[in-house]
Amino acid sequence: MPLKIKDLISIKDLDRDELRLILDTAESFKEVGARDIKKVPTLRGKTVVNLFFEPSTRTRTSFELAAKRLSADLVNLAVNSSSVAKGETLLDTARNIEAMQADLMVVRHPCAGAPALLAKHMTSGIINAGDGAHEHPTQALLDLFTIRERKKTLEGLTVVIVGDILHSRVARSAIHALKMIGSTVRVVGPPTMIPREIMHWGVEVFYQYEMALKGADVIMILRLQLERQGRSLFPTIREYANLYGLTVRRLAMAKDDVLVMHPGPINRGVEISPEVADGLSSAILSQATNGVAVRMAVLYLLSGVIKNESVDPQRPAH
Amino acid sequence: MPLKIKDLISIKDLDRDELRLILDTAESFKEVGARDIKKVPTLRGKTVVNLFFEPSTRTRTSFELAAKRLSADLVNLAVNSSSVAKGETLLDTARNIEAMQADLMVVRHPCAGAPALLAKHMTSGIINAGDGAHEHPTQALLDLFTIRERKKTLEGLTVVIVGDILHSRVARSAIHALKMIGSTVRVVGPPTMIPREIMHWGVEVFYQYEMALKGADVIMILRLQLERQGRSLFPTIREYANLYGLTVRRLAMAKDDVLVMHPGPINRGVEISPEVADGLSSAILSQATNGVAVRMAVLYLLSGVIKNESVDPQRPAH
Amino acid sequence: MPLKIKDLISIKDLDRDELRLILDTAESFKEVGARDIKKVPTLRGKTVVNLFFEPSTRTRTSFELAAKRLSADLVNLAVNSSSVAKGETLLDTARNIEAMQADLMVVRHPCAGAPALLAKHMTSGIINAGDGAHEHPTQALLDLFTIRERKKTLEGLTVVIVGDILHSRVARSAIHALKMIGSTVRVVGPPTMIPREIMHWGVEVFYQYEMALKGADVIMILRLQLERQGRSLFPTIREYANLYGLTVRRLAMAKDDVLVMHPGPINRGVEISPEVADGLSSAILSQATNGVAVRMAVLYLLSGVIKNESVDPQRPAH
Repeated sequence: MPLKIKDLISIKDLDRDELRLILDTAESFKEVGARDIKKVPTLRGKTVVNLFFEPSTRTRTSFELAAKRLSADLVNLAVNSSSVAKGETLLDTARNIEAMQADLMVVRHPCAGAPALLAKHMTSGIINAGDGAHEHPTQALLDLFTIRERKKTLEGLTVVIVGDILHSRVARSAIHALKMIGSTVRVVGPPTMIPREIMHWGVEVFYQYEMALKGADVIMILRLQLERQGRSLFPTIREYANLYGLTVRRLAMAKDDVLVMHPGPINRGVEISPEVADGLSSAILSQATNGVAVRMAVLYLLSGVIKNESVDPQRPAH
Repeated sequence: MPLKIKDLISIKDLDRDELRLILDTAESFKEVGARDIKKVPTLRGKTVVNLFFEPSTRTRTSFELAAKRLSADLVNLAVNSSSVAKGETLLDTARNIEAMQADLMVVRHPCAGAPALLAKHMTSGIINAGDGAHEHPTQALLDLFTIRERKKTLEGLTVVIVGDILHSRVARSAIHALKMIGSTVRVVGPPTMIPREIMHWGVEVFYQYEMALKGADVIMILRLQLERQGRSLFPTIREYANLYGLTVRRLAMAKDDVLVMHPGPINRGVEISPEVADGLSSAILSQATNGVAVRMAVLYLLSGVIKNESVDPQRPAH
Repeated sequence: MPLKIKDLISIKDLDRDELRLILDTAESFKEVGARDIKKVPTLRGKTVVNLFFEPSTRTRTSFELAAKRLSADLVNLAVNSSSVAKGETLLDTARNIEAMQADLMVVRHPCAGAPALLAKHMTSGIINAGDGAHEHPTQALLDLFTIRERKKTLEGLTVVIVGDILHSRVARSAIHALKMIGSTVRVVGPPTMIPREIMHWGVEVFYQYEMALKGADVIMILRLQLERQGRSLFPTIREYANLYGLTVRRLAMAKDDVLVMHPGPINRGVEISPEVADGLSSAILSQATNGVAVRMAVLYLLSGVIKNESVDPQRPAH
């Protein structure tokens, strides 16, 4: 059974069965990573292009390894979005790559909606690898995979998401996914970092960390983006760390078997203390491992619906 | 039959038969791109190095995909030419890579003549991927391929090249190729963008776009390099667009079945209107598709004449 | 027989037998580079990551080609060390990559000790590709390989190392290796470029080039790093060239069959004259050729001791 979608732009593109299909497929691909020869011929002769309009190391590398372990040909394209502004449109850039017979394009872009625009206009499959503050669906999928692996279930859990909900594509994707699967979601952070429309998301809102942690099965910490948010959204990093840093003391307020997650890169001593990051509750490195498996699953499943009829869209059919 | 040349520096390196050989070979490689598994083992174990002294995404990617679909090992080297200036000479950089047993090196350089210098001093095959305002031979080959595919012939056609002829390596290579194959070439652009030596090139020169278009089979539009030419060679971009932008109205002055080409990236609303770029006459995306096939052909044909005897030029023969 | 070590951080990690094992293994891999198909399936399905915190073209490319010719999957990660400083620690960056199941990580870092830190905390094999002014062990190995290939022995030779000994990781690694193997090592350079602790290294120190060259079998020239040392350590580059440039006249003071080596990139007319660089004594390009073979040997031998049991260090064993 392939996915019925051509692209993965938002978690909302998936229904519950498709979400489970991706997780189940990722499970079998995780075994590939455990082998002595971590490679399968599944996507041999397919072309996957990493088209990144924002710098990234970990997500780009995760997709690159996923593609290579499936034996696909992978090309990295790091496009400086300021230079793009000078001339060619986003769509022309992508169409040009598509014309070189890219089967799948993994797109990261600073503007929300960019991958959706490409998906609408192209036959290549588009995978959203993060678009502005909109979504980062493969992150949510790997988070769910990791929770399911540890908790043996996804239902009936209480998941606390901590930090800058307002600007976080990771939070948006995770909330959609957790709601779909039947978890209770709590968000907590400084009032300046909680979006106004939060009341429509079906989540519980807290402003005090300790309150939110009571009975939590999973704590998903968001990265504090020091480079941009330090100034305006709260007084000092130190104050943020005091109020919203996960310490051993705070961790004890959650359930005994609570799982601590973070999409990385982590700021030790800010949103998470070193003891917690390296402690037994932490699943942070498992997330990295599982990210490759989940992306292998997404590449594999989306490649099943690639329309192979169009070699060259402008070539006359003679 | 392999090519008799070791390098592809200029279209002038080729005779008519060799040019046709490349196009015919590219045709069979284009079929590879149409397959479900877009990969052949032809160049397995060969090393191709993209040595780019100028930024590039599309040409670099096109060569990368060509090499990978032939199963060659490809290495990208983006060298900042200012940092090169500090120490090592161009020839030392290239010799070092050659010593690592690079079979073919794809070279882009801001200075005309750089690839020719390398070709003269090295046993590795050198492919010119654009050198200053000199030549860009694989662009001309993919243009010819595209024209032949659509027009079913290369002879007796009237081809109009529009824009900055003076600074364009694309124009130089295209003119050589089109003349060799027996087409009539017209150039048109602002007088400041037409080189003085044009009278020796065997082309017809126009300064008024509408006049040049009469009876045209093909219109090859050159990219207006906004980042450098906007200031001095004509008053404003708007004026350039008024005089030399290909609009639907102007397009109607050419033959009904005229083909519109552009090497990309395109400036919509400057040298080409969106309606024309996306219209039925446009072969712009076909050019991108054909570029990979033509570069596969060039890599394949040049690899046939690689001298395999020299493993290590400095090693004593004992 | 595999190596008994997990990592290659320093030449001091190796004993004499292991050093010879690497050289002997490299010899057989050098033959792979001489074949028409320069590729063996030895490391198929293994993941090698080039993790470079300093710019590099030649070392990075040499490892990339070595990995690809062994059929490993190679990922390049160029990390700007200033951006790293903003958040994530070095160890967290590397652990994240390790969690993606990297078998071997090739690490270059501006700080001495960085690769050793990673080696201590991770199960992935770490190869030091240059750390500050500390060591660059694969450079020393390829130097020894080249000397042995030309001189048919490594014992009883007199090797002169010229230049900035103080800041050179190349010199440190070479001295350790040459001493281990039983060569006599002389160092020569401006007094400001000779470290104070040199008396403990078991080498002969000269300040006058001509004196050092008498009876030399090998001259190893260090690169003068124009970009940083030109100012403070000696008056002018011209003066350096006068005193420590290897000219034809100086070359004649060494043995007739002296071998001239340089890790590259060379500054022609500064530390080496063009006549010497391109002359019959020069082994500079052989070093580049041999570098790939030696790195293939190191990747191959270290991959033998990779601990395969740990798929995901944080996954519960259920």
